[in-house]
Amino acid sequence: MSRPIEELGEFGLIEQLRRYQRGRPGLLAGIGDDAAVLAGPPGYRTLFTADILVEGVHFFPDTDPYALGRKAMAVNVSDIAAMGGIPTFATVGLGVPPGTSADRIDRLYAGMSDEAAAFGASIVGGDTVRAPVLFISVALLGEVEEQRLLLRKGALVGDRICVTHRIGEAAAGLLLLQRPDLQVPEDTRRRLVDRLLRPTPRVEAGRELGLGIATAAIDLSDGLAGDLYKLCAASQVGAIIDLAALPISDDVRRVAEAAGVDPVELALRGGEDYELLFTTSSLREGSHVLPRSGTPYTVIGEVVDEWRGVHVRQPDGRLRPLEDSGFRHF
Amino acid sequence: MSRPIEELGEFGLIEQLRRYQRGRPGLLAGIGDDAAVLAGPPGYRTLFTADILVEGVHFFPDTDPYALGRKAMAVNVSDIAAMGGIPTFATVGLGVPPGTSADRIDRLYAGMSDEAAAFGASIVGGDTVRAPVLFISVALLGEVEEQRLLLRKGALVGDRICVTHRIGEAAAGLLLLQRPDLQVPEDTRRRLVDRLLRPTPRVEAGRELGLGIATAAIDLSDGLAGDLYKLCAASQVGAIIDLAALPISDDVRRVAEAAGVDPVELALRGGEDYELLFTTSSLREGSHVLPRSGTPYTVIGEVVDEWRGVHVRQPDGRLRPLEDSGFRHF
Repeated sequence: MSRPIEELGEFGLIEQLRRYQRGRPGLLAGIGDDAAVLAGPPGYRTLFTADILVEGVHFFPDTDPYALGRKAMAVNVSDIAAMGGIPTFATVGLGVPPGTSADRIDRLYAGMSDEAAAFGASIVGGDTVRAPVLFISVALLGEVEEQRLLLRKGALVGDRICVTHRIGEAAAGLLLLQRPDLQVPEDTRRRLVDRLLRPTPRVEAGRELGLGIATAAIDLSDGLAGDLYKLCAASQVGAIIDLAALPISDDVRRVAEAAGVDPVELALRGGEDYELLFTTSSLREGSHVLPRSGTPYTVIGEVVDEWRGVHVRQPDGRLRPLEDSGFRHF
Repeated sequence: MSRPIEELGEFGLIEQLRRYQRGRPGLLAGIGDDAAVLAGPPGYRTLFTADILVEGVHFFPDTDPYALGRKAMAVNVSDIAAMGGIPTFATVGLGVPPGTSADRIDRLYAGMSDEAAAFGASIVGGDTVRAPVLFISVALLGEVEEQRLLLRKGALVGDRICVTHRIGEAAAGLLLLQRPDLQVPEDTRRRLVDRLLRPTPRVEAGRELGLGIATAAIDLSDGLAGDLYKLCAASQVGAIIDLAALPISDDVRRVAEAAGVDPVELALRGGEDYELLFTTSSLREGSHVLPRSGTPYTVIGEVVDEWRGVHVRQPDGRLRPLEDSGFRHF
């Protein structure tokens, strides 16, 4: 038991925490989904999630505080979106290094508040404490109609696997920040860095997917490969992802070429896109838009039996196992 | 606007955050009480609070992780207790330095889980991230019957001011940890250090006070002086505290004498007792116990008109203004 936490890994950490969850009336689903599911008002479920961003780990020290505030709230809203819900109330915990300007904190609050308000939610409390680095710890409540609730479990063999919008873009944006020398057009740079720093939670899409379209869903925070594994584990299914079908933009291809990396790897491994990954039996092959919200989505694969595991289909038609290598938290 | 955060102070920080709170259906009371008050199931209110502990700021690096876990949950439970409620569901965010042993994290979880379970609550989610120092960020939901809800506002001129149990004990415990040279009996040391490291949220007392006994309440986290000011500000009243009436134990007096400090100052300024400070028109002078829960309490003063301010009555009968000097968060 004296192992360092790095050896536990994220799954080990979640397992460790899950052991300490206790049943309680009103608890319908807890640790292991994007948000906990609690009994709500008649006909509704209450959702409860929490996410932390730490300076130097999740963001650069010079990140614009307003954008950072928006993102800290957005990543929590995204968890609610992945369950088909809308966000309602948030508490915000801030760790603040001595000497931080009051203006920086004000801009952070403004960003968090604006992002919450964009989805009808409000900050209702929190705690601000001294800390050696800036960190932001948001806890967010949401609500969803009982029949609209989406979970990671529920995917069925034969379902199609889809993602909203395009993937690998936040990872390409991160590459551009890490390597300012990369030669790409200015609008490509701006668009991809924006995708990293100003993610858009897919609340409208999640609401629509909850209307009987999706059988299971998760938001893409740790990268397609890692998050697909979580959805498959929860649903007890396998998957085949068609690499040729991945929605990779020309912008991402330009960055990949300039950096000498494979754009498919950016799409599979890159985290922080905050798109929705979902399974469905009712959508057609190819790239389309959801009829109500107009959200673009692409069918990228199919759900198979659990014993078949998780594979990718290469452009040459051959299958190879997909390595589970999402963002390493430790 | 380029002032450092130290100049804002805690009230400034809360004001700054309050500006960004937006109204929303279901929000009944937000920033500025121990917990936010939200619409709940019929006849109930939902409470929502969040508190953070940071290594080196709120606890020593060598603190026993199980006790630390209990305390991190207890300080949140105390916020719910001060509103007359019971805790229900928590998320726990952990910042963990690289190389931390998995066992330490396991003990932390166990402590948080046991403390929650002691009051019927459960941990249902959270986030664990890498960070340069250990920090613990708990968000906690609670519930309270509408008519049982206690707020900081509601104190009326003429009400008596009371505290549960004794105060200044956690501060005396901190002194003993900071100055191991202080000569006091071993059981005094153990009891006071325990009061600092293993606080007991006064849930039963809060439940009872909500049955029409208290007109206003707050938990003592930052010290009597600071928290009394908050209650008075919320209630728009003044107060006179009778120094001779403060419930100061012989243990605290022993430590104060050994350290050459005034025990009354420990009682007025010392934080982290997590006792309840409340106002009432229905309890008698002196020290007694609440009839249902058997919680000891002491009448320590009276509520006066706001224009009279906040004063202490010295043993010689003279009044002097009480300085507002709770725990400085920055």
